[in-house]
This record gives sequence, C-alpha cells and structure tokens, in this order.
Amino acid sequence: MVDITKKEPSLRTAVAHAIVRVGSQATIEAIRNGKVPKGDVFEMSRAAGLLGVKQTALLLPDCHPLPIEFTAIGYALKGLEIHIEVTVKTHYKTGVEVEAMHGASVVALNMYDMLKPIDKNVEICNIRLLTKTGGKSDIRRQA
Amino acid sequence: MVDITKKEPSLRTAVAHAIVRVGSQATIEAIRNGKVPKGDVFEMSRAAGLLGVKQTALLLPDCHPLPIEFTAIGYALKGLEIHIEVTVKTHYKTGVEVEAMHGASVVALNMYDMLKPIDKNVEICNIRLLTKTGGKSDIRRQA
Amino acid sequence: MVDITKKEPSLRTAVAHAIVRVGSQATIEAIRNGKVPKGDVFEMSRAAGLLGVKQTALLLPDCHPLPIEFTAIGYALKGLEIHIEVTVKTHYKTGVEVEAMHGASVVALNMYDMLKPIDKNVEICNIRLLTKTGGKSDIRRQA
Amino acid sequence: MVDITKKEPSLRTAVAHAIVRVGSQATIEAIRNGKVPKGDVFEMSRAAGLLGVKQTALLLPDCHPLPIEFTAIGYALKGLEIHIEVTVKTHYKTGVEVEAMHGASVVALNMYDMLKPIDKNVEICNIRLLTKTGGKSDIRRQA
Amino acid sequence: MVDITKKEPSLRTAVAHAIVRVGSQATIEAIRNGKVPKGDVFEMSRAAGLLGVKQTALLLPDCHPLPIEFTAIGYALKGLEIHIEVTVKTHYKTGVEVEAMHGASVVALNMYDMLKPIDKNVEICNIRLLTKTGGKSDIRRQA
Amino acid sequence: MVDITKKEPSLRTAVAHAIVRVGSQATIEAIRNGKVPKGDVFEMSRAAGLLGVKQTALLLPDCHPLPIEFTAIGYALKGLEIHIEVTVKTHYKTGVEVEAMHGASVVALNMYDMLKPIDKNVEICNIRLLTKTGGKSDIRRQA
Repeated sequence: MVDITKKEPSLRTAVAHAIVRVGSQATIEAIRNGKVPKGDVFEMSRAAGLLGVKQTALLLPDCHPLPIEFTAIGYALKGLEIHIEVTVKTHYKTGVEVEAMHGASVVALNMYDMLKPIDKNVEICNIRLLTKTGGKSDIRRQA
Repeated sequence: MVDITKKEPSLRTAVAHAIVRVGSQATIEAIRNGKVPKGDVFEMSRAAGLLGVKQTALLLPDCHPLPIEFTAIGYALKGLEIHIEVTVKTHYKTGVEVEAMHGASVVALNMYDMLKPIDKNVEICNIRLLTKTGGKSDIRRQA
Repeated sequence: MVDITKKEPSLRTAVAHAIVRVGSQATIEAIRNGKVPKGDVFEMSRAAGLLGVKQTALLLPDCHPLPIEFTAIGYALKGLEIHIEVTVKTHYKTGVEVEAMHGASVVALNMYDMLKPIDKNVEICNIRLLTKTGGKSDIRRQA
Repeated sequence: MVDITKKEPSLRTAVAHAIVRVGSQATIEAIRNGKVPKGDVFEMSRAAGLLGVKQTALLLPDCHPLPIEFTAIGYALKGLEIHIEVTVKTHYKTGVEVEAMHGASVVALNMYDMLKPIDKNVEICNIRLLTKTGGKSDIRRQA
Repeated sequence: MVDITKKEPSLRTAVAHAIVRVGSQATIEAIRNGKVPKGDVFEMSRAAGLLGVKQTALLLPDCHPLPIEFTAIGYALKGLEIHIEVTVKTHYKTGVEVEAMHGASVVALNMYDMLKPIDKNVEICNIRLLTKTGGKSDIRRQA
Repeated sequence: MVDITKKEPSLRTAVAHAIVRVGSQATIEAIRNGKVPKGDVFEMSRAAGLLGVKQTALLLPDCHPLPIEFTAIGYALKGLEIHIEVTVKTHYKTGVEVEAMHGASVVALNMYDMLKPIDKNVEICNIRLLTKTGGKSDIRRQA
C-alpha cells in the first residue's frame, strides 16, 4: 500500500462510466415500464452501487480505506445500451477513481443479475474513468 | 430473491471473461517482468478475485448465497490486452455465472488499481459470460 | 453455538414483521409519490433488507451461517404506519427466524435513514416473529 | 448519498434506545443469574452491538462511512423488559443517530437469538432516537 | 482454490489451540475478577471468536466457504498463560482446521486488544492444530 | 469502546511480527521456488494481510475504525521459520498495533492454509508487537 502519511488531504472527485448492453428492445421496455420480475432495476442497482463504493477497500488489497463524502449514480438509455455514471467525492489524501469504478462495476453486475432471467445476452462493456480532479494531475475524457 | 426451495441441486459451472486494456507496451513489460511497484499483478489480483467470488452474495441483493466448490483464475496476454478467465463450480440449485462475472470484475479492477500509478490509460472492457452448464439451458460462446 | 451436526435438514420458513411509524401524513404522501429526496423508499429498503438477511450470521455470534433459498419483502401502509413483512425460506438444520427478523430490522432502519431529512419523528416499533414452520414446534401469531 | 463535501466536522453524539420484552419472569432470572445456555446475554450482545455500530454504512446504502470515536452500551431491567441504551460519538460532518439505532437493533436481535431456546415470546419494541447533538438541530426526548 | 466438486461430504471436526501470555499476575487477577475496564474478557472474546470462525473464507483467498454447524470456545488459566481451545464441526467436503485456527487467532487478538491498556507485555504464542478428524487422514497432537 | 473524542490525532506507527514454522526443508524450497500448488505464498499472503489489516475493526468489538494510511508486509526465511513483519501507519487518535498484529496473524494463517496440503506440521508462533510510536508511550523490542 502506497505510503500517504505525508500527503495533505484535498477535495478529490472521480466520475466513472460503465455500459450494459442488453440483447433486445423488449428488455429495455421491461426496465422502463417496471416489468422486470426481480424489481426496479435502477433503484435496486443504485442501492447495490452505493454499498459497493463503500466496500472497495475491503475487496482490493492496495486500496486505502477512506471516508466517502458523496456518491451519485445516474443512468441514460441509448438504444440497447444502459449508460451508468458514478460520481464519488471526498476530502482525502488519495483519489477516489477506483471507488467510482467499483461502484460502476457493481451497478452493472447487479443489472446483469436482475436481467438474466429475461435476457441471455446481457454484457458489461467499457468500465472506465471519465474525470478525476484534485490529485497531482486531472483527467478529463469524453463519455 | 427467486424461490429455489423446490429445485434440486446439480453441478453448475460458469466461465466468465474480462479484458483489461493498458495504454502502452511498457506496462505489459512491467507486469511480465515483475516491475510493477505495487507487487505481482497476477498473484495479487488472483487473491482479490478468489475473495471477490465468495463475496458476490453480500454485494448483489438478489443473489443466493452458495457454497463455492471451485474457483480458478487464468490469464493470457494479447498485445495491449490482458485476458482474464474465471471458472466457478458448485453443486447447488442456482447457477454461478454472476459469481464468475463478479470475480472477473474484481480481478480487472485490482489490475486497474495496481497499474494506475504507471499507466493512466487502463480500461476494463467486455466482462461477459463465456460458458454456463448445469441449469435448464447451457450457454457456450466464443472468447 | 448450538451443535446441529446430528440434525436433519428440512424446509424452514419464517415470517417477521416490523412497523415504522412516521410523524405526519406528508411523509406517507412523499413515500407514495416518490418524492423522498434519497430515492424510492420501498425499493432501496428492499435491496438493503435482502442483503441484511444474508449478513445475519456475520453480525450475531451464535447464529449458524446457512444458504438462504428465498427472501421476500412486502409492505403495507396503514395510517401513519408502514408495515414490513419479511419471509425467509431454506432447507437447513436450523430455523430462519433470526434472519427474517434481521431483514425486517434492516428494512426499518433504512426507512428511518431515508426519511430523517424530512421527518424528525420516525420510530421503529414492534419487530417480531409472526410465523415459523419446519422445526420442532411451529409458531403462528396474528399480525 | 447526501453531499457533505462542504460541511465542517463537529462533535456529534446520539443516544438510541431499544426495548426487548421477554415472555416470563423466569427468563429475566436466567439472564440475571447467568443461566442462559448460550452465554452471558449482556456481554455477548454488547460485543455484537459494538461491531454492529461499525457496520452500519455497509448495510444501509445512503449512510456515510465515518470514524466512530466512542460507543457505549448500557442495560436496565424493568419488569419483563430489558432497556438498551446505545451512545455513539464522533467528530464528523454527519450525525451518528443511524449508527446508534443500528447498534440498539443488533443488541436487541442478539438477545432475541440467545433467548429463543428458552422463551418463545421475546419481542423487540420501540427502537428510537433519544438524543442527538451537534448538527443543525438537537433532539432530546424522554426515554 | 482446490476443486472439491467430486468429493463426498462427511463429518469434519477440528480443534485448534492458542496461548496468550500476559505480563503479570495482576492481569490474570483482573481477568478473573471482571476488573478489566473494557469488559468481560472471556465473553467478549468468545463473541469475537464465534464471528471470526464464520468470516474465515472472507479473509483467506483459497479457503472454501462452508456451513459451520458447531463452534465452541473454551479457556484455561495456567500461570501467566491463557489457553484457548476452539472446536469447529461441520458436514462438508473439506476440513475445518483453518476455521478453528482463525477462531483461536481472533480470540487471542481480542484478548490482546482488551488487555493492552493494563498490560504492555501481552503476547500471542503457539496457534496450532490439536485434532482433526473426518478427512483422508486424522491428526491428534498433545495440547 | 474507549472514548477518544477529546484526543488529538498524531502519526502512529506499529510493527508486528509473526513466525510460521514449517515441518521440513522441502516446504521452504517449495515456497522459494514457487512450487506450492495453491500459488505464490508470499504474494497471496501479502494480499490477504493487506485486506486483513483493513478489516480489524470489523472483527474486534472494541477496536476503533480508522483510515489506514500505509501497510507494508515483509518476509525473511530463517531455517524452518518464515518471519513476517507487518508495518502500519496512520494519523489518528489511537494506535495501530492491533491492526498490525491482525495483519501478521492473517498472513500467518494464509500461509498455513496454502501449505497444509504439502506439510502437516505448520505452526504459527509468536505473534507480537515489535515497535509502536506516536502515543503516550513508545515501545521498542527486539525481533
């Protein structure tokens, strides 16, 4: 684990992005109309993602435990794709990009888990960092 | 959570696949030659993935807790991509595909976490199920 | 921990009940109309409760870890009260009443957590076992 | 999760209260005299409650993880009721009332778990916040 | 993780042993007379150990998750030593020796944690397996 | 849990030490040459230990949760003994010696778990604190 005892805390933000691709328009309609048997895909996955962000340091050995001050999870539907955006903020000595990416991954996995009874072709693609501010170097990419 | 009280247990297997794409050949060389400052990327990520598989039901609300009987994590290097393959087996009343996909996702995230100090362009792509046997319908796809 | 090595597994079911009392009709309306700022109170609390049921043995020292086969969480609104009903089933050597009660407690606490910004008078009352079948003695009480 | 990046930390305290009602005076005597087969009900439940307070943010999606600086768990016997009082303190940007209530709930559930072999009529009633200081508005209620 | 899909479950038992050595007779007297400020050392450590046994597979990557059917934790005082004995049983396809040893280790660590304010010379020595039955080969050693 | 609300945070360090004794020189050679079937004993155990350090407060009731800023895990082979040294640092109001000792214990247990298929005589001995700085009194002992 990297030694951060000499660093100063500052406001860190990170936005991660994940895409879940489903197999048919019928799946998108089921999600939109609340017809997925396992429940509301957006709200249940948001709950899982909020918890997932907080468990990052318990899953990844080198990750510093830190007091997450804000997490937001947003969705956009584009054709057969569900775009997931996870924003994490904290005042700490390390960045929160892995936390944001872990959150995006848990949201995507939970969608897979809820959708697999009705669609065998769900796939998770492209979990990546969009934005990172507050450390030595900022990162800004296009979604 | 789906009611499985009336189902019979059978041998279930699942193989999930994830790809981590790095930004340069120098990163691949650092991994291969054990020069990544945070440690051995393959072994550390394998440890994280083995633990991740077992924590799936604690992260995903609808997922049944089950006694994993086998997990294997394999790697292949292809150009700038690290291909991750996670195999999970158990005798139980539900499949283990979400466990395998969660394992693949944790391995990929841990690689991202270990590589980010030396490469700003690591990305996780294409977490998907390759094979599933033992339930009502088998699934077999190409890697 | 009670020694259950000589017992035979059988189908066990348990239904637990909890009541959350809110401070005003406005809170009930906010829940019903999806106007609670933190999100959908029923779906978010259901996600928390489903996870909580599975974590019971990690919180209570004497509780046996067991493979939960089914959990359902239902709600009813009665005046200023939200009635929560959690049903748990499994084939195992011990009952699942503590798992059902822990699920009911986590659902209730999550409602408290989501509602406290809009209502200072939320209270959890009456977490109790309604029904238990499958062990030496069945229990059936009125809700 | 509410954005607290702009708030200042201050000393926060919360006291939560729970009542466990048992079915007979014999149960109270068994607890008092250390005759409950599963062990010392007060000490075992205190251990469970201390751990439970620290796991609150891993169970409730919207709850901020925070560094608990103090937890105390007290008991009082009143007729057939065991009164549980959980005090939590920290310097942080959010209150600790949900942590205190979760602690009270875990203590109560653990008592239920330890007492159920000797008393079928144990019930948890009235988990509520007694006192809260340090945020925008203090709360003080009667036990 | 070793592949156990083809093995048959049988009754497995394991007994592990740990020794905590304290720095002075005054510490032993404080424990015996319930004068340790942090609480009852035996009961609190027993609670921690019971939970620790159940968390073994979440801490050790290669360890199979399994349904623990029995755990008992016993103590003996010998001079400046506290002898801890943890017995674990289950019907499963793998042994439970690591679970028993992890339980013994958590009990010992908790004693260290509770005693360090009153004794700077507490040390954990000799965590080892005493007995193991039910697998290919039994092990029996002297305490 | 000791009340630390009035203390000031300062840099705390702790170094703990554990010894794993194996049964034969062949085991040492297998470790050194990467021939242990379950994987690289040093890297896998390091991953387990890094995670273990961060889970200390979830296992020990009285332990304060704290933001670990640095963990390092080192090894030395001496005859049939593997010496494990775990260093933990943080800026906080309490020491990190229990975290360092828990890390050393998890590393040792993981070695036991990985080695038991090839050596029935592995034993954990002598988990103890070597150094502690930053609190009221420093501790320095010989390895």
